[in-house]
Amino acid sequence: MTQNIYDTDTFFEGYSQLPRSQRGLAGAPEWPAIRALLPDIRGQQVVDLGCGYGWFSHWAVEHGAASVLGLDISEKMLARATSINADSRIDYQRCDLERLALPSGRFTLAYSSLALHYIRDLGGLLRSVREALQPGGRLVFSIEHPIYMASLHPDWVNDDQGGRSWPVDHYQVEGQRTTDWLSAGVIKQHRTLGTLVNLLIDSGFRLDRLIEWGPSAQDLATHPALADEIHRPMMLIVAASRDSVQPIT
Amino acid sequence: MTQNIYDTDTFFEGYSQLPRSQRGLAGAPEWPAIRALLPDIRGQQVVDLGCGYGWFSHWAVEHGAASVLGLDISEKMLARATSINADSRIDYQRCDLERLALPSGRFTLAYSSLALHYIRDLGGLLRSVREALQPGGRLVFSIEHPIYMASLHPDWVNDDQGGRSWPVDHYQVEGQRTTDWLSAGVIKQHRTLGTLVNLLIDSGFRLDRLIEWGPSAQDLATHPALADEIHRPMMLIVAASRDSVQPIT
Repeated sequence: MTQNIYDTDTFFEGYSQLPRSQRGLAGAPEWPAIRALLPDIRGQQVVDLGCGYGWFSHWAVEHGAASVLGLDISEKMLARATSINADSRIDYQRCDLERLALPSGRFTLAYSSLALHYIRDLGGLLRSVREALQPGGRLVFSIEHPIYMASLHPDWVNDDQGGRSWPVDHYQVEGQRTTDWLSAGVIKQHRTLGTLVNLLIDSGFRLDRLIEWGPSAQDLATHPALADEIHRPMMLIVAASRDSVQPIT
Repeated sequence: MTQNIYDTDTFFEGYSQLPRSQRGLAGAPEWPAIRALLPDIRGQQVVDLGCGYGWFSHWAVEHGAASVLGLDISEKMLARATSINADSRIDYQRCDLERLALPSGRFTLAYSSLALHYIRDLGGLLRSVREALQPGGRLVFSIEHPIYMASLHPDWVNDDQGGRSWPVDHYQVEGQRTTDWLSAGVIKQHRTLGTLVNLLIDSGFRLDRLIEWGPSAQDLATHPALADEIHRPMMLIVAASRDSVQPIT
């Protein structure tokens, strides 16, 4: 089972203070880049993998999606989603994404925001998602960038000229990374970018877009702290389609 | 025009000492990974983009390729290729890859080893290559990894516990990088990995495989110096196919 850090008090408390928790999609600087990769949302049947507070699920139905199944492992998250982002067209359900079981061909769009780097068996998850998509169905997700996640000591290195760099080490050593973020001992799964892309292809997806998100000039003007993200790729945004070719089994 | 550093004496002299110059494909640790991505070479009509000493061109015809057009900007390289890797089925020609002009639908396989990071207009090159490939034709290439190339001070950072990390900075700032390798002032073109993948897709290719090359246990046993390459992705190996979908123009 995936670590359910979101239900520990310290983590949930810290998480609830983040701009993206308080302001929803408007508090997530990568949202415009994700939105640009989404198909026309009207009429879509959506599964939201790791829906959190339900900001995206709610945005989707507000903009014309036919239905959303919002899945999350955290009871606290789902309680918050039900409280602030409820809608008759949204069904919030508790689910460990490591054990995803969805009806075949039920969805036209699978969406996930910053959840898949917690998943150990990502290949299994992707095969389930492909099976749950109709032909031509789309998968759009964000995930922590492997370069952001690889190092055993992930912290900026300052040089003596006032510059800084992000350290990369153990990149080729895939597997668990434990970091302190909001609370101690958050467990993530490091995979190289190559592995991620090849898992997608082998699971029966066709890669349509790969964005290594970085701040725009406007982002920097509004949020000067984002200047760090000029130096390293922090987040990956991927758009893929259910391929007509059968996956490798 | 691309910088023709290979024809400067210091560079050519240094280059001729590299294992991959002296021993050919057997001196390139990434060769087994590239070879695994190649289609059956028998009968292929090949263009070798940046053929250097012609080691691959010669390997291809020796293993049954119908013909190879070997292209390079460097006169010294081509002279060496003609001297040590000549074959009646290989045509070596001088060519600046920035101005590639190839007959339409002439080839079934385009190959390139560690040359494309010198190209400024990579989109233009990729569109030319797609046009020169038959339907279903393949493109297999290696390129310096953007993470290897991004930093303005690309050198290992040692910590006080005997560990080391590779610095990443200015990753999102695409464009020219000048480094000293074999001679001073070698000019390369930094693009993010996302940009590279999206250029491929927009040029009418379908991505089949993305390998961030790292040493195997056997590589490490034979060449202990390769241990550094556990820590950073140094090289990217890509396999793609001419897509049936028209490119974006």
